[in-house]
Amino acid sequence: MIFNTQDLLNFPDRYRAHFINSLSGYKSANLVGTRSPNGEENLSIVSSVFHLGAHPPLMGVIFRPHSVRRDTLENILQTKTYTINHVNSLIWKEAHQTSARYDEHQSEFDATGLTPYYHDNFGAPFVAQSQLKIGLELCQHQTIELNKTVLVIGKIVHVEVDDNAVAEDGFINLEQLDTIAVSGLDCYHTTSKIARLEYAKPNKPATTKA
Amino acid sequence: MIFNTQDLLNFPDRYRAHFINSLSGYKSANLVGTRSPNGEENLSIVSSVFHLGAHPPLMGVIFRPHSVRRDTLENILQTKTYTINHVNSLIWKEAHQTSARYDEHQSEFDATGLTPYYHDNFGAPFVAQSQLKIGLELCQHQTIELNKTVLVIGKIVHVEVDDNAVAEDGFINLEQLDTIAVSGLDCYHTTSKIARLEYAKPNKPATTKA
Repeated sequence: MIFNTQDLLNFPDRYRAHFINSLSGYKSANLVGTRSPNGEENLSIVSSVFHLGAHPPLMGVIFRPHSVRRDTLENILQTKTYTINHVNSLIWKEAHQTSARYDEHQSEFDATGLTPYYHDNFGAPFVAQSQLKIGLELCQHQTIELNKTVLVIGKIVHVEVDDNAVAEDGFINLEQLDTIAVSGLDCYHTTSKIARLEYAKPNKPATTKA
Repeated sequence: MIFNTQDLLNFPDRYRAHFINSLSGYKSANLVGTRSPNGEENLSIVSSVFHLGAHPPLMGVIFRPHSVRRDTLENILQTKTYTINHVNSLIWKEAHQTSARYDEHQSEFDATGLTPYYHDNFGAPFVAQSQLKIGLELCQHQTIELNKTVLVIGKIVHVEVDDNAVAEDGFINLEQLDTIAVSGLDCYHTTSKIARLEYAKPNKPATTKA
């Protein structure tokens, strides 16, 4: 079936949201942890975290223009620190539940039963139940004028991960960590590894890694 | 195990690339199809496509500062059109192979055996073997000064997908389409649906969709 620009515009709003959110393919499932300047904790699930570069180590995340997620964005802009925590198959329902529109002063940690965890003097809360915890410092943010979403770029300053999941070459085995994936707005998936492939070269067919 | 900023900087380059590329979680696996102003086709795998908004329907993709992928970026900037095509489990090796540094005038379609497919007068080639094909028009691009990567934002103007995979509410069943996921630089995964969850509300526990 083929849809053109006009077809997409004619979709009812919720239908379009489900459809367009499905188009990019599988997405990462992460919880963003923050604290307001007066110490109130905030936690929200996002499927918009993406790799931006390894050297310096950078991650991007997109925030919607108007939503409950603005608490998280405001905290990041004010405190310059936040955490990104992988969602796993033991906490996926609690993670999804953080997207409910709780009152401004209600902590999503308390509301969902997820446990805040602090490391040394890093200001933002990690999620104790997450098996891969990342601490970031805000580098820059900008509004995408096309739709008023906000792109936030942070530098990775802290990573906490089970060493058994880190391969000799630095690759992290996400299945061992029980990390899950998202599709669309609300569908959660476990994964099964097909294989890793060697660095591709023009005169050599694709080869699986031992 | 805990890594701080200095630990990450001390990693050998390849180790750091594998490690940091794994941190965001599962990524989408897509092939970007373009054609140069004089008609030469180009195809490259990317794991950096992300959802940017449903209304207007927008997608983002990050291109690295210096790599074989610049052909694709140059074509997009010059022709303003490109395609994004889901990678599935029948073409994952061919898709990965498009990342080899082929000569500038060598088509990755020819080199890998993937088949270009054109629709009406849309200028960029789709991948015939892909089960979800998206046509985009360039909206804007910008260099992220922190690391000289380039963010390209496009408007979705064409979507081709099997109707059986589109649910009543607009959600697209990616497993039915055989779409796969990537982790790190080179690991490919199939997925298994856990469940879809209802829109979260503060006074209601997370509920699976029927």
